[in-house]
Amino acid sequence: MKTPGGMLLTGIELDRSSPVPLYRQLYLQVRKQILSGRLPGGTRLPSTRTLCKELGLSRITLLNAFDQLTAEGFLASRTGAGSYVGDEWEGRDAAADKPRKPPRLSSMSQAVHSLRSDHFSGMSYSAWAPDCPTSFLPSHPAYDAFPMLVWKRMMNRHLRKPGKTELGYGELKGLLRLREAIVEYVADARGIECSVDQVVITSGAQQAFNLLGMLLLNPGDSVWMEDPGHIAARIAFQALGCQLVPLRIDDQGLDVMQGLRECPEARLAFTTPSRQHPLGTTMSYARRQELIDWAGRSQGWIIEDDCDSEFRYVGRPLPALYAMDQWDKVIYVGTFSKVLYPSLRLGYVILPEDLVEPFCAIRAVMDRSPSTLHQATTADFMLDGHFLGHIRRMRNLYQARQACLVEALQRHLGGFLSVTPVEAGLHLMGWLPEKMDDDDLARGLADHQVYTYALRDYCIRHYLPPGLLLGFAATPETQAEQRVQEFVQALRAIGMRV
Amino acid sequence: MKTPGGMLLTGIELDRSSPVPLYRQLYLQVRKQILSGRLPGGTRLPSTRTLCKELGLSRITLLNAFDQLTAEGFLASRTGAGSYVGDEWEGRDAAADKPRKPPRLSSMSQAVHSLRSDHFSGMSYSAWAPDCPTSFLPSHPAYDAFPMLVWKRMMNRHLRKPGKTELGYGELKGLLRLREAIVEYVADARGIECSVDQVVITSGAQQAFNLLGMLLLNPGDSVWMEDPGHIAARIAFQALGCQLVPLRIDDQGLDVMQGLRECPEARLAFTTPSRQHPLGTTMSYARRQELIDWAGRSQGWIIEDDCDSEFRYVGRPLPALYAMDQWDKVIYVGTFSKVLYPSLRLGYVILPEDLVEPFCAIRAVMDRSPSTLHQATTADFMLDGHFLGHIRRMRNLYQARQACLVEALQRHLGGFLSVTPVEAGLHLMGWLPEKMDDDDLARGLADHQVYTYALRDYCIRHYLPPGLLLGFAATPETQAEQRVQEFVQALRAIGMRV
Repeated sequence: MKTPGGMLLTGIELDRSSPVPLYRQLYLQVRKQILSGRLPGGTRLPSTRTLCKELGLSRITLLNAFDQLTAEGFLASRTGAGSYVGDEWEGRDAAADKPRKPPRLSSMSQAVHSLRSDHFSGMSYSAWAPDCPTSFLPSHPAYDAFPMLVWKRMMNRHLRKPGKTELGYGELKGLLRLREAIVEYVADARGIECSVDQVVITSGAQQAFNLLGMLLLNPGDSVWMEDPGHIAARIAFQALGCQLVPLRIDDQGLDVMQGLRECPEARLAFTTPSRQHPLGTTMSYARRQELIDWAGRSQGWIIEDDCDSEFRYVGRPLPALYAMDQWDKVIYVGTFSKVLYPSLRLGYVILPEDLVEPFCAIRAVMDRSPSTLHQATTADFMLDGHFLGHIRRMRNLYQARQACLVEALQRHLGGFLSVTPVEAGLHLMGWLPEKMDDDDLARGLADHQVYTYALRDYCIRHYLPPGLLLGFAATPETQAEQRVQEFVQALRAIGMRV
Repeated sequence: MKTPGGMLLTGIELDRSSPVPLYRQLYLQVRKQILSGRLPGGTRLPSTRTLCKELGLSRITLLNAFDQLTAEGFLASRTGAGSYVGDEWEGRDAAADKPRKPPRLSSMSQAVHSLRSDHFSGMSYSAWAPDCPTSFLPSHPAYDAFPMLVWKRMMNRHLRKPGKTELGYGELKGLLRLREAIVEYVADARGIECSVDQVVITSGAQQAFNLLGMLLLNPGDSVWMEDPGHIAARIAFQALGCQLVPLRIDDQGLDVMQGLRECPEARLAFTTPSRQHPLGTTMSYARRQELIDWAGRSQGWIIEDDCDSEFRYVGRPLPALYAMDQWDKVIYVGTFSKVLYPSLRLGYVILPEDLVEPFCAIRAVMDRSPSTLHQATTADFMLDGHFLGHIRRMRNLYQARQACLVEALQRHLGGFLSVTPVEAGLHLMGWLPEKMDDDDLARGLADHQVYTYALRDYCIRHYLPPGLLLGFAATPETQAEQRVQEFVQALRAIGMRV
């Protein structure tokens, strides 16, 4: 049987090709053996000479490692008697072999875990991977058409002589100039009248939904959700322990009457009035009024998610729900992810006055204001007039891209997929033959690098026929034909007769 | 008494100097009168001719406004009978005058509200305002010494031909290259062995603390907190409904024995071992081992906040607590706010393997990965070798700045303030005469644009003498003298005999 010292030797494996210096490799491995209990406290180590010889190390390398181990209390040396493992490392053997219990997690964590759809693990994150094609992925704008030269110039302005303003901690509510630009923009584009004090910048809409949930909801509170509807928002509210009240979508939008029948006392309604997510319906004025009146009467709150109303191809964009709200019950959430680009990570909340201060308190606890550089660049882009031009260009581009994709889809898949163009947004719905499982289909397609989302993922009660969300904004007209052919091939590869 | 039509006229005020077009001003104001109930449903409006005359508007301007109001259902027109306010706007008068109830908020919001120290409203945010001097503000690095030219060059690399990788949604865990750079850095600088899969990028340490709280803590759970200790982390855990167990700091750091006596069953311990925040103590090896053994035995968790251990002026930096943990109970939180700059908004968490997946699930619900551009630039900066050089330069710079400030403080305020240099970090402690209220003093100083933090804000139980946190990293040696003189003047202005 080997002596502990011998054990040390057998345990050490030095990699001479590694960038990590040898003394450091030795240090780390000896420490690991001590921590794991493999080298018990009190063990006497072989002499430096033996170790140098056995390990093929120079004396200086060895001493470097041992000095550090000694300084850190792992080794003790007794004059004349060489080095020992410090006695305080006695009886640690337990640690290594102990059977691992599952980690103790919060109830929220367990809830999220059970709630989490593939949206938060497999498919859609793989679909978000840098290298995968964007064709058919909803919520991806046209990266190829982003005016990067202008953007770059504006960004570099702020990189010239940056000081505390650019590099330090940002203002709690976000950069004032950006909030001013937003106030001006939403007044013109969305009919919203608000002051800069009511605008708070977030790192995107998803953070806004979570902060608003924390601000307004207690565990057990009921929330009206559109069904089908926004998945990430739904999970955010469920993670807070809320009850969902799924409301059907008809041609006028959210069925408010159903909500009044089933749960008038709901604390919050989450809605996408300008372009229902994912179906694309626009909420009628009558419905908007019903919804606002419910909130006013019942002291409920309304979150208006307005992520891509800029991209409307038919008719003029309707003013925001916020603009109709005389009860100060509507909270408006906007984002730059679609209208500029997702990795900018900028969104904003427009709050009724009496929610501003409480919202900021939670905002300050949860996170700081996003990158000042990105806020400043976005503000310039808006105030220098590039923003509206960009939106106009993208609207035309997306309209053309949709037309082109619809044409190709109908030509190649007319019998299989029933496609109707959307009035607004970045994706259209492709309706599948009845009884088909859109979830399975989307997974199957993903295995062949064709990424779509299944309508089913968006549904709470499953009363709709199967369908796929097909993004069109990121597919140039020149590529539509090829993408659709890939789509067809993928369908055949998973056994569809198309 | 005026006719409703007349009321409309009196209500309208057009600003001809405003950038908002006249038709839009008219549209917004009429809509507001209808929404507020000032113009009840059914009201007949004056003829277009009258309105044009009274308001001094061209017919086309008026019609533009009325067309939109009609399209949006605010006005109805009956041929020959002119325009009416839509009947569905009947009886809204209530809304405007109704006495406002206080808004219904979540218990968490109310808790945060009551917990919130000035840290989250007045003083320190005003201190974070772009225009205020950084002298004496803790946690501000040297903006004047940041290598912006190199940084700018690297950032612009990624702005050349950006595609989905740069502009699209980032990877859930953060950019792989940055996580690789972090793994290499923490191995060399902090003695941490981990895989890229254990590293998750966050938008700074504060977001990490919140996500970890949600992951690990249930309402009512007990948390060991250093006293004095990290304010924002403390409030994050309290906001989740947790009980704080304040543990004293002695010359060895966190008093683990006190924790074992008072609350051995705590779910989590939050600690700053490399540089106790705010006192600057380094936790001894014995204490580290006690802490880790507690966690291993009791299935507790440890959050190691390591925000600025890079800046150690005396002795070599000690390896991270994480590196000593054989029980997989330590979660390491790092940030780039101090070592690069705060508005970069990048931090990271290094998780035990069995926490990675649950953490990512919550992370995906709460927010997306931070700006890819900043992650990519930071990765380049690290992998191209600029990072370590920057740290080395800043370490020397801060050491010199501290020495200079200490000298000036002792020369001018020796009798009033007892100053001792810190071994690590960006601020030193200035101890005040007994019985003085450091909180009042800090507020008084802030009124004279001299920003410090009061030690008292960091204390849970108040057993320490009064003191001020004095940041030195952001004050160039050439300015130290003047800043200290301003400090002296401010003290005199608030009636201190110095």
